Amino acid sequence: MIHDERPVILITNDDGITAPGIRALVNAVKDLGQVIVVAPDSPQSGMGHAITIGEPLRLHKTEIFEGIASWECSGTPVDCVKLARDKILHRKPDICLSGINHGANYSINIIYSGTMSAAMEAAIEGIPSVGFSLLDFGYDADFSVAGEVARAITKRMLQQAMPKHTLLNVNIPKLPKAEFKGLKMCRQAYAKWQEEFDHRIDPRGKDYYWMTGKFMNLDKGDDTDAQALADGYASVVPVKFDFTDMDMKQKLEADWKDLEV
Amino acid sequence: MIHDERPVILITNDDGITAPGIRALVNAVKDLGQVIVVAPDSPQSGMGHAITIGEPLRLHKTEIFEGIASWECSGTPVDCVKLARDKILHRKPDICLSGINHGANYSINIIYSGTMSAAMEAAIEGIPSVGFSLLDFGYDADFSVAGEVARAITKRMLQQAMPKHTLLNVNIPKLPKAEFKGLKMCRQAYAKWQEEFDHRIDPRGKDYYWMTGKFMNLDKGDDTDAQALADGYASVVPVKFDFTDMDMKQKLEADWKDLEV
Repeated sequence: MIHDERPVILITNDDGITAPGIRALVNAVKDLGQVIVVAPDSPQSGMGHAITIGEPLRLHKTEIFEGIASWECSGTPVDCVKLARDKILHRKPDICLSGINHGANYSINIIYSGTMSAAMEAAIEGIPSVGFSLLDFGYDADFSVAGEVARAITKRMLQQAMPKHTLLNVNIPKLPKAEFKGLKMCRQAYAKWQEEFDHRIDPRGKDYYWMTGKFMNLDKGDDTDAQALADGYASVVPVKFDFTDMDMKQKLEADWKDLEV
Repeated sequence: MIHDERPVILITNDDGITAPGIRALVNAVKDLGQVIVVAPDSPQSGMGHAITIGEPLRLHKTEIFEGIASWECSGTPVDCVKLARDKILHRKPDICLSGINHGANYSINIIYSGTMSAAMEAAIEGIPSVGFSLLDFGYDADFSVAGEVARAITKRMLQQAMPKHTLLNVNIPKLPKAEFKGLKMCRQAYAKWQEEFDHRIDPRGKDYYWMTGKFMNLDKGDDTDAQALADGYASVVPVKFDFTDMDMKQKLEADWKDLEV
Protein backbone atom coordinates (compact mmCIF):
# COMPACT_ATOMS: atom_id res chain seq x y z
CA MET A 1 0.00 0.00 0.00
CA ILE A 2 1.27 3.46 -0.90
CA HIS A 3 0.03 4.50 2.57
CA ASP A 4 2.83 2.55 4.22
CA GLU A 5 5.58 4.21 2.23
CA ARG A 6 4.91 7.62 3.70
CA PRO A 7 7.10 8.60 6.64
CA VAL A 8 5.57 7.92 10.03
CA ILE A 9 5.25 11.08 12.13
CA LEU A 10 4.63 10.51 15.85
CA ILE A 11 3.07 13.51 17.58
CA THR A 12 2.77 14.06 21.31
CA ASN A 13 2.69 16.95 23.79
CA ASP A 14 2.44 17.79 27.47
CA ASP A 15 -0.63 20.02 27.52
CA GLY A 16 -2.89 17.04 26.85
CA ILE A 17 -4.50 15.65 23.73
CA THR A 18 -7.32 18.22 23.68
CA ALA A 19 -5.03 21.27 23.73
CA PRO A 20 -5.25 23.60 20.70
CA GLY A 21 -1.46 23.45 20.31
CA ILE A 22 -1.32 19.76 19.39
CA ARG A 23 -4.20 20.25 16.97
CA ALA A 24 -2.26 23.07 15.30
CA LEU A 25 0.77 20.77 14.99
CA VAL A 26 -1.27 17.92 13.51
CA ASN A 27 -2.81 20.28 10.96
CA ALA A 28 0.55 21.80 10.06
CA VAL A 29 2.21 18.49 9.12
CA LYS A 30 -0.54 16.00 8.33
CA ASP A 31 0.12 15.98 4.59
CA LEU A 32 3.86 15.33 5.09
CA GLY A 33 3.42 11.73 6.20
CA GLN A 34 1.34 9.26 8.15
CA VAL A 35 0.58 11.05 11.40
CA ILE A 36 0.00 9.08 14.62
CA VAL A 37 -0.93 10.94 17.81
CA VAL A 38 -0.25 9.49 21.26
CA ALA A 39 -0.67 12.15 23.93
CA PRO A 40 -1.55 12.49 27.62
CA ASP A 41 -5.22 12.43 28.60
CA SER A 42 -4.63 15.34 31.00
CA PRO A 43 -2.25 18.31 31.23
CA GLN A 44 1.31 17.29 32.16
CA SER A 45 3.15 20.61 32.14
CA GLY A 46 6.19 20.71 34.38
CA MET A 47 6.47 16.93 34.47
CA GLY A 48 10.04 17.00 33.18
CA HIS A 49 11.35 13.58 32.29
CA ALA A 50 8.98 11.82 34.70
CA ILE A 51 7.98 8.23 33.95
CA THR A 52 5.23 6.16 35.53
CA ILE A 53 6.62 3.16 37.39
CA GLY A 54 4.46 2.91 40.49
CA GLU A 55 1.11 2.51 38.75
CA PRO A 56 -0.19 0.97 35.54
CA LEU A 57 -0.72 2.87 32.30
CA ARG A 58 -3.90 3.13 30.24
CA LEU A 59 -4.15 3.73 26.51
CA HIS A 60 -7.44 4.61 24.76
CA LYS A 61 -8.04 5.08 21.04
CA THR A 62 -9.77 8.37 20.30
CA GLU A 63 -11.38 9.95 17.27
CA ILE A 64 -10.69 13.58 18.05
CA PHE A 65 -8.52 14.24 14.99
CA GLU A 66 -10.40 13.56 11.76
CA GLY A 67 -8.59 10.98 9.66
CA ILE A 68 -5.66 10.70 12.09
CA ALA A 69 -5.06 7.63 14.26
CA SER A 70 -4.82 8.86 17.84
CA TRP A 71 -4.56 7.50 21.36
CA GLU A 72 -4.77 9.15 24.76
CA CYS A 73 -2.57 7.84 27.53
CA SER A 74 -2.90 8.10 31.31
CA GLY A 75 0.83 8.64 31.72
CA THR A 76 3.45 11.33 31.24
CA PRO A 77 4.74 12.62 27.89
CA VAL A 78 7.72 10.26 28.16
CA ASP A 79 5.36 7.33 28.82
CA CYS A 80 3.47 8.28 25.64
CA VAL A 81 6.59 7.98 23.50
CA LYS A 82 7.57 4.65 25.04
CA LEU A 83 4.08 3.18 24.64
CA ALA A 84 3.68 4.52 21.11
CA ARG A 85 6.85 2.85 19.95
CA ASP A 86 6.35 -0.40 21.78
CA LYS A 87 2.60 -1.02 21.81
CA ILE A 88 1.15 0.95 18.88
CA LEU A 89 3.73 1.36 16.12
CA HIS A 90 5.86 -1.70 16.90
CA ARG A 91 8.63 0.20 15.10
CA LYS A 92 10.42 3.52 15.30
CA PRO A 93 8.56 6.44 13.70
CA ASP A 94 10.64 8.42 11.19
CA ILE A 95 10.31 11.55 13.26
CA CYS A 96 8.78 12.56 16.59
CA LEU A 97 7.22 15.99 17.07
CA SER A 98 6.16 17.33 20.46
CA GLY A 99 3.93 20.35 21.03
CA ILE A 100 3.05 22.90 20.02
CA ASN A 101 3.47 23.82 23.66
CA HIS A 102 1.38 26.59 25.17
CA GLY A 103 4.25 28.62 26.66
CA ALA A 104 8.01 28.98 26.38
CA ASN A 105 10.50 26.14 26.72
CA TYR A 106 13.71 27.94 25.78
CA SER A 107 16.85 28.12 27.91
CA ILE A 108 16.72 26.21 31.20
CA ASN A 109 13.01 25.49 30.74
CA ILE A 110 14.10 22.46 28.71
CA ILE A 111 14.66 20.49 31.91
CA TYR A 112 11.21 21.17 33.41
CA SER A 113 9.36 20.68 30.17
CA GLY A 114 7.31 17.58 29.44
CA THR A 115 7.23 18.70 25.81
CA MET A 116 11.00 18.56 25.50
CA SER A 117 11.32 15.41 27.59
CA ALA A 118 9.02 13.53 25.21
CA ALA A 119 11.19 14.67 22.29
CA MET A 120 14.36 13.76 24.19
CA GLU A 121 13.02 10.29 24.97
CA ALA A 122 12.49 9.71 21.25
CA ALA A 123 15.95 11.06 20.38
CA ILE A 124 17.59 8.74 22.92
CA GLU A 125 15.74 5.94 21.16
CA GLY A 126 17.33 7.06 17.86
CA ILE A 127 14.37 8.97 16.40
CA PRO A 128 15.09 12.51 15.11
CA SER A 129 12.83 14.71 17.21
CA VAL A 130 11.69 18.27 17.72
CA GLY A 131 9.84 20.06 20.47
CA PHE A 132 7.89 23.17 19.41
CA SER A 133 6.78 25.83 21.89
CA LEU A 134 4.96 29.11 21.40
CA LEU A 135 5.65 32.02 23.75
CA ASP A 136 1.97 32.38 24.60
CA PHE A 137 0.29 30.57 27.49
CA GLY A 138 -3.22 31.47 26.32
CA TYR A 139 -5.67 28.74 25.42
CA ASP A 140 -6.74 30.95 22.50
CA ALA A 141 -3.15 31.60 21.33
CA ASP A 142 -2.56 32.14 17.61
CA PHE A 143 -0.58 29.11 16.41
CA SER A 144 -0.39 30.14 12.74
CA VAL A 145 3.26 31.26 12.64
CA ALA A 146 4.27 28.38 14.93
CA GLY A 147 2.49 25.96 12.59
CA GLU A 148 4.43 27.32 9.62
CA VAL A 149 7.70 26.93 11.54
CA ALA A 150 6.81 23.37 12.52
CA ARG A 151 5.92 22.52 8.94
CA ALA A 152 9.10 23.96 7.42
CA ILE A 153 11.38 22.22 9.92
CA THR A 154 9.57 18.88 9.74
CA LYS A 155 9.63 18.92 5.93
CA ARG A 156 13.37 19.62 5.88
CA MET A 157 14.10 16.94 8.46
CA LEU A 158 12.17 14.34 6.48
CA GLN A 159 13.98 15.31 3.25
CA GLN A 160 17.45 15.46 4.73
CA ALA A 161 19.17 12.47 6.32
CA MET A 162 19.43 13.67 9.92
CA PRO A 163 21.71 12.03 12.50
CA LYS A 164 19.40 9.64 14.36
CA HIS A 165 19.88 11.28 17.76
CA THR A 166 18.98 14.75 16.44
CA LEU A 167 16.95 16.71 18.96
CA LEU A 168 15.85 20.31 18.42
CA ASN A 169 14.31 22.71 20.91
CA VAL A 170 12.32 25.19 18.81
CA ASN A 171 10.61 28.21 20.37
CA ILE A 172 8.44 30.65 18.45
CA PRO A 173 7.86 34.25 19.51
CA LYS A 174 4.35 35.64 20.00
CA LEU A 175 4.34 37.84 16.92
CA PRO A 176 2.19 38.36 13.86
CA LYS A 177 3.72 36.99 10.67
CA ALA A 178 4.66 40.48 9.41
CA GLU A 179 6.95 41.04 12.39
CA PHE A 180 8.39 37.49 12.49
CA LYS A 181 12.07 37.38 11.45
CA GLY A 182 12.58 33.69 10.63
CA LEU A 183 14.69 30.91 12.17
CA LYS A 184 17.92 31.29 14.11
CA MET A 185 20.27 28.53 15.33
CA CYS A 186 21.16 29.26 18.95
CA ARG A 187 22.71 27.97 22.10
CA GLN A 188 20.75 27.55 25.33
CA ALA A 189 20.90 30.74 27.43
CA TYR A 190 22.01 30.45 31.04
CA ALA A 191 18.94 31.47 32.97
CA LYS A 192 17.01 30.37 36.03
CA TRP A 193 13.70 30.81 37.78
CA GLN A 194 13.58 33.02 40.82
CA GLU A 195 10.95 31.35 42.95
CA GLU A 196 8.40 33.36 44.82
CA PHE A 197 6.28 30.98 46.87
CA ASP A 198 2.85 32.33 47.65
CA HIS A 199 2.22 31.36 51.29
CA ARG A 200 -1.43 30.85 52.29
CA ILE A 201 -3.43 29.36 55.15
CA ASP A 202 -6.10 26.77 54.36
CA PRO A 203 -9.60 26.76 55.98
CA ARG A 204 -8.27 24.36 58.64
CA GLY A 205 -5.49 26.74 59.62
CA LYS A 206 -2.66 24.88 57.90
CA ASP A 207 0.06 26.45 55.75
CA TYR A 208 0.37 25.78 52.06
CA TYR A 209 2.40 27.24 49.22
CA TRP A 210 1.81 27.93 45.55
CA MET A 211 4.94 27.92 43.45
CA THR A 212 5.25 31.03 41.32
CA GLY A 213 8.38 32.56 39.91
CA LYS A 214 10.11 35.00 37.65
CA PHE A 215 12.29 33.88 34.74
CA MET A 216 15.70 35.54 34.89
CA ASN A 217 18.01 35.50 31.89
CA LEU A 218 21.53 35.81 33.30
CA ASP A 219 23.21 35.32 29.92
CA LYS A 220 24.14 38.41 27.92
CA GLY A 221 25.47 36.50 24.90
CA ASP A 222 24.03 37.43 21.50
CA ASP A 223 23.92 33.81 20.29
CA THR A 224 21.36 32.54 22.81
CA ASP A 225 17.78 31.40 22.32
CA ALA A 226 16.58 34.07 24.75
CA GLN A 227 18.17 36.81 22.64
CA ALA A 228 16.93 35.41 19.31
CA LEU A 229 13.36 35.34 20.63
CA ALA A 230 13.66 38.88 21.97
CA ASP A 231 14.82 39.90 18.48
CA GLY A 232 11.76 38.34 16.82
CA TYR A 233 13.27 35.05 15.62
CA ALA A 234 12.20 31.49 16.27
CA SER A 235 15.08 29.93 18.20
CA VAL A 236 16.41 26.51 17.18
CA VAL A 237 18.69 24.87 19.77
CA PRO A 238 20.22 21.48 18.88
CA VAL A 239 20.28 19.49 22.11
CA LYS A 240 22.47 16.60 23.21
CA PHE A 241 21.86 14.22 26.07
CA ASP A 242 25.43 13.49 27.03
CA PHE A 243 25.55 15.90 29.96
CA THR A 244 29.18 15.22 30.89
CA ASP A 245 31.20 18.32 31.67
CA MET A 246 34.47 17.16 30.08
CA ASP A 247 36.49 20.20 31.28
CA MET A 248 35.41 19.56 34.84
CA LYS A 249 36.19 15.85 34.47
CA GLN A 250 39.76 16.75 33.52
CA LYS A 251 40.07 19.24 36.37
CA LEU A 252 38.85 16.73 38.96
CA GLU A 253 41.14 14.01 37.64
CA ALA A 254 44.01 16.30 38.58
CA ASP A 255 42.61 17.99 41.72
CA TRP A 256 41.17 14.87 43.35
CA LYS A 257 44.00 12.47 42.51
CA ASP A 258 44.74 12.07 46.22
CA LEU A 259 41.11 11.61 47.27
CA GLU A 260 40.83 8.11 48.65
CA VAL A 261 37.94 6.13 50.06
CA MET B 1 27.20 31.73 67.46
CA ILE B 2 29.78 29.20 66.41
CA HIS B 3 26.83 27.14 65.17
CA ASP B 4 26.25 29.59 62.34
CA GLU B 5 29.81 29.48 61.07
CA ARG B 6 29.62 25.85 60.06
CA PRO B 7 28.82 25.20 56.41
CA VAL B 8 25.14 24.56 55.71
CA ILE B 9 24.53 21.17 54.09
CA LEU B 10 21.11 20.72 52.49
CA ILE B 11 20.11 17.07 52.09
CA THR B 12 17.25 15.73 50.01
CA ASN B 13 16.37 12.59 48.04
CA ASP B 14 13.70 11.02 45.86
CA ASP B 15 12.98 7.83 47.81
CA GLY B 16 11.23 9.82 50.53
CA ILE B 17 12.34 11.09 53.92
CA THR B 18 11.92 7.71 55.65
CA ALA B 19 14.21 5.79 53.24
CA PRO B 20 17.32 4.19 54.77
CA GLY B 21 19.47 5.85 52.07
CA ILE B 22 18.87 9.42 53.23
CA ARG B 23 19.50 8.36 56.83
CA ALA B 24 22.84 6.87 55.75
CA LEU B 25 23.72 10.15 54.02
CA VAL B 26 22.78 12.26 57.05
CA ASN B 27 24.88 10.04 59.32
CA ALA B 28 27.84 10.13 56.93
CA VAL B 29 28.15 13.92 56.83
CA LYS B 30 26.45 15.31 59.94
CA ASP B 31 29.68 16.31 61.65
CA LEU B 32 30.93 18.19 58.56
CA GLY B 33 28.47 21.07 58.94
CA GLN B 34 24.99 22.15 59.88
CA VAL B 35 22.76 19.58 58.19
CA ILE B 36 19.22 20.52 57.10
CA VAL B 37 16.97 17.85 55.57
CA VAL B 38 14.07 18.74 53.26
CA ALA B 39 12.79 15.64 51.49
CA PRO B 40 9.59 14.29 49.92
CA ASP B 41 6.97 12.78 52.22
CA SER B 42 6.49 9.88 49.75
CA PRO B 43 8.63 8.04 47.18
CA GLN B 44 9.29 10.12 44.07
CA SER B 45 11.48 7.81 41.98
CA GLY B 46 11.29 8.40 38.26
CA MET B 47 9.93 11.92 38.71
CA GLY B 48 12.74 13.44 36.67
CA HIS B 49 12.82 17.22 36.87
CA ALA B 50 9.09 17.44 37.62
CA ILE B 51 7.85 20.47 39.54
CA THR B 52 4.45 21.00 41.16
CA ILE B 53 2.58 23.86 39.55
CA GLY B 54 -1.02 22.67 39.43
CA GLU B 55 -1.50 22.13 43.14
CA PRO B 56 -0.25 23.66 46.37
CA LEU B 57 2.73 22.38 48.34
CA ARG B 58 2.84 21.36 51.99
CA LEU B 59 5.84 21.46 54.29
CA HIS B 60 5.90 19.79 57.73
CA LYS B 61 8.67 19.87 60.34
CA THR B 62 9.62 16.37 61.50
CA GLU B 63 11.77 14.93 64.25
CA ILE B 64 12.89 11.75 62.55
CA PHE B 65 16.62 12.57 62.54
CA GLU B 66 17.91 13.14 66.05
CA GLY B 67 19.50 16.57 66.39
CA ILE B 68 18.97 17.42 62.71
CA ALA B 69 16.41 20.00 61.55
CA SER B 70 14.21 18.28 58.99
CA TRP B 71 11.08 18.91 56.97
CA GLU B 72 8.96 16.66 54.78
CA CYS B 73 7.41 18.13 51.66
CA SER B 74 4.39 17.02 49.62
CA GLY B 75 6.13 17.84 46.35
CA THR B 76 8.84 16.48 44.09
CA PRO B 77 12.58 16.46 44.84
CA VAL B 78 12.97 19.67 42.80
CA ASP B 79 10.18 21.31 44.81
CA CYS B 80 12.06 20.37 48.00
CA VAL B 81 15.18 22.23 46.90
CA LYS B 82 13.23 25.30 45.86
CA LEU B 83 11.23 25.41 49.11
CA ALA B 84 14.30 24.74 51.27
CA ARG B 85 16.16 27.67 49.79
CA ASP B 86 13.24 30.07 49.72
CA LYS B 87 11.11 29.23 52.78
CA ILE B 88 13.40 27.47 55.25
CA LEU B 89 17.00 28.60 54.81
CA HIS B 90 16.31 32.02 53.28
CA ARG B 91 19.81 31.70 51.84
CA LYS B 92 21.81 29.32 49.68
CA PRO B 93 23.23 26.31 51.50
CA ASP B 94 26.97 25.78 51.00
CA ILE B 95 26.37 22.41 49.39
CA CYS B 96 23.39 20.28 48.41
CA LEU B 97 23.52 16.48 48.67
CA SER B 98 20.86 14.20 47.24
CA GLY B 99 20.42 10.53 48.03
CA ILE B 100 21.76 8.08 48.84
CA ASN B 101 19.46 6.68 46.16
CA HIS B 102 18.29 3.10 46.37
CA GLY B 103 19.31 2.04 42.86
CA ALA B 104 21.56 3.18 40.00
CA ASN B 105 21.47 6.62 38.40
CA TYR B 106 24.49 6.39 36.12
CA SER B 107 24.46 6.97 32.38
CA ILE B 108 21.11 8.02 30.87
CA ASN B 109 19.33 7.38 34.19
CA ILE B 110 20.32 10.91 35.12
CA ILE B 111 17.37 12.27 33.17
CA TYR B 112 14.74 10.08 34.84
CA SER B 113 16.16 10.45 38.30
CA GLY B 114 14.53 12.64 40.93
CA THR B 115 17.74 12.31 42.95
CA MET B 116 19.83 13.91 40.21
CA SER B 117 17.16 16.47 39.35
CA ALA B 118 17.17 17.77 42.91
CA ALA B 119 20.95 18.13 42.74
CA MET B 120 20.72 19.77 39.31
CA GLU B 121 18.14 22.26 40.57
CA ALA B 122 20.55 23.32 43.31
CA ALA B 123 23.46 23.57 40.86
CA ILE B 124 21.42 25.78 38.52
CA GLU B 125 20.82 27.97 41.55
CA GLY B 126 24.60 28.20 42.06
CA ILE B 127 24.98 25.66 44.87
CA PRO B 128 27.68 22.98 44.40
CA SER B 129 25.75 19.72 44.46
CA VAL B 130 26.13 15.97 44.37
CA GLY B 131 23.72 13.11 43.81
CA PHE B 132 24.74 9.77 45.38
CA SER B 133 23.26 6.47 44.25
CA LEU B 134 23.98 2.90 45.32
CA LEU B 135 23.57 0.07 42.83
CA ASP B 136 21.21 -1.80 45.12
CA PHE B 137 17.42 -1.38 45.08
CA GLY B 138 16.94 -3.28 48.32
CA TYR B 139 15.36 -1.56 51.30
CA ASP B 140 17.95 -3.38 53.43
CA ALA B 141 20.89 -2.39 51.22
CA ASP B 142 24.29 -1.91 52.86
CA PHE B 143 25.08 1.82 52.62
CA SER B 144 28.42 1.67 54.46
CA VAL B 145 30.75 2.06 51.45
CA ALA B 146 28.38 4.59 49.85
CA GLY B 147 28.41 6.58 53.09
CA GLU B 148 32.21 6.66 53.09
CA VAL B 149 32.21 7.85 49.49
CA ALA B 150 29.66 10.56 50.30
CA ARG B 151 31.67 11.70 53.29
CA ALA B 152 34.99 11.87 51.41
CA ILE B 153 33.52 13.83 48.48
CA THR B 154 31.51 16.20 50.66
CA LYS B 155 34.51 16.94 52.86
CA ARG B 156 36.68 17.71 49.84
CA MET B 157 34.03 19.91 48.26
CA LEU B 158 33.63 21.93 51.44
CA GLN B 159 37.40 22.36 51.77
CA GLN B 160 38.06 23.24 48.15
CA ALA B 161 36.55 26.29 46.43
CA MET B 162 34.34 24.57 43.87
CA PRO B 163 32.84 26.41 40.88
CA LYS B 164 29.34 27.34 42.01
CA HIS B 165 27.56 25.37 39.31
CA THR B 166 29.44 22.15 40.12
CA LEU B 167 27.20 19.11 39.83
CA LEU B 168 28.43 15.54 40.30
CA ASN B 169 26.62 12.30 39.57
CA VAL B 170 28.19 9.72 41.89
CA ASN B 171 27.25 6.03 41.70
CA ILE B 172 28.58 3.40 44.06
CA PRO B 173 28.83 -0.30 43.19
CA LYS B 174 27.22 -2.96 45.37
CA LEU B 175 30.44 -4.34 46.78
CA PRO B 176 31.95 -5.01 50.20
CA LYS B 177 34.71 -2.57 51.16
CA ALA B 178 37.45 -5.13 50.49
CA GLU B 179 36.47 -5.35 46.82
CA PHE B 180 35.78 -1.64 46.32
CA LYS B 181 38.39 0.04 44.09
CA GLY B 182 37.89 3.75 44.89
CA LEU B 183 36.71 6.76 42.88
CA LYS B 184 36.96 7.24 39.12
CA MET B 185 36.13 10.37 37.11
CA CYS B 186 34.05 9.33 34.11
CA ARG B 187 31.87 10.47 31.26
CA GLN B 188 28.20 9.47 30.96
CA ALA B 189 27.85 6.23 28.98
CA TYR B 190 25.49 6.19 26.02
CA ALA B 191 22.82 3.74 27.05
CA LYS B 192 19.07 3.43 26.95
CA TRP B 193 16.20 1.44 28.39
CA GLN B 194 14.60 -1.18 26.26
CA GLU B 195 10.98 -1.09 27.37
CA GLU B 196 9.00 -4.24 27.84
CA PHE B 197 5.44 -3.31 28.74
CA ASP B 198 3.62 -5.97 30.68
CA HIS B 199 0.10 -6.02 29.19
CA ARG B 200 -2.71 -7.13 31.52
CA ILE B 201 -6.50 -7.08 31.66
CA ASP B 202 -8.21 -5.60 34.73
CA PRO B 203 -11.22 -7.21 36.47
CA ARG B 204 -13.53 -5.04 34.34
CA GLY B 205 -12.01 -6.34 31.11
CA LYS B 206 -9.93 -3.27 30.31
CA ASP B 207 -6.31 -3.26 29.17
CA TYR B 208 -3.53 -1.82 31.26
CA TYR B 209 0.27 -1.83 31.10
CA TRP B 210 3.07 -1.97 33.61
CA MET B 211 6.29 -0.39 32.44
CA THR B 212 9.28 -2.66 32.84
CA GLY B 213 12.52 -2.58 30.94
CA LYS B 214 16.07 -3.67 30.46
CA PHE B 215 19.02 -1.29 30.71
CA MET B 216 21.23 -1.51 27.64
CA ASN B 217 24.72 -0.05 27.65
CA LEU B 218 25.50 0.73 24.00
CA ASP B 219 28.79 2.45 24.81
CA LYS B 220 31.98 0.40 24.65
CA GLY B 221 34.28 3.22 25.80
CA ASP B 222 36.55 2.50 28.75
CA ASP B 223 36.09 5.98 30.26
CA THR B 224 32.36 5.67 31.02
CA ASP B 225 30.52 5.46 34.32
CA ALA B 226 29.03 2.10 33.30
CA GLN B 227 32.52 0.64 32.79
CA ALA B 228 33.96 2.10 36.00
CA LEU B 229 31.11 0.56 38.02
CA ALA B 230 31.56 -2.80 36.30
CA ASP B 231 35.24 -2.60 37.27
CA GLY B 232 34.41 -2.01 40.94
CA TYR B 233 34.88 1.79 41.14
CA ALA B 234 32.47 4.47 42.27
CA SER B 235 31.83 6.59 39.16
CA VAL B 236 31.99 10.39 39.40
CA VAL B 237 30.52 12.22 36.40
CA PRO B 238 30.69 16.03 36.41
CA VAL B 239 27.45 17.23 34.82
CA LYS B 240 26.61 20.44 33.02
CA PHE B 241 23.18 21.82 32.26
CA ASP B 242 23.93 23.63 29.05
CA PHE B 243 22.62 20.92 26.74
CA THR B 244 23.46 22.73 23.48
CA ASP B 245 25.04 20.51 20.84
CA MET B 246 27.48 23.11 19.46
CA ASP B 247 28.68 20.90 16.58
CA MET B 248 25.12 20.38 15.42
CA LYS B 249 24.41 24.10 15.76
CA GLN B 250 27.27 24.83 13.37
CA LYS B 251 26.13 22.14 10.94
CA LEU B 252 22.55 23.43 10.86
CA GLU B 253 23.71 27.02 10.40
CA ALA B 254 25.28 25.85 7.14
CA ASP B 255 22.78 23.19 6.03
CA TRP B 256 19.62 25.15 6.80
CA LYS B 257 20.76 28.56 5.58
CA ASP B 258 18.10 28.48 2.87
CA LEU B 259 15.28 27.33 5.16
CA GLU B 260 12.76 30.14 5.26
CA VAL B 261 9.46 30.56 7.06
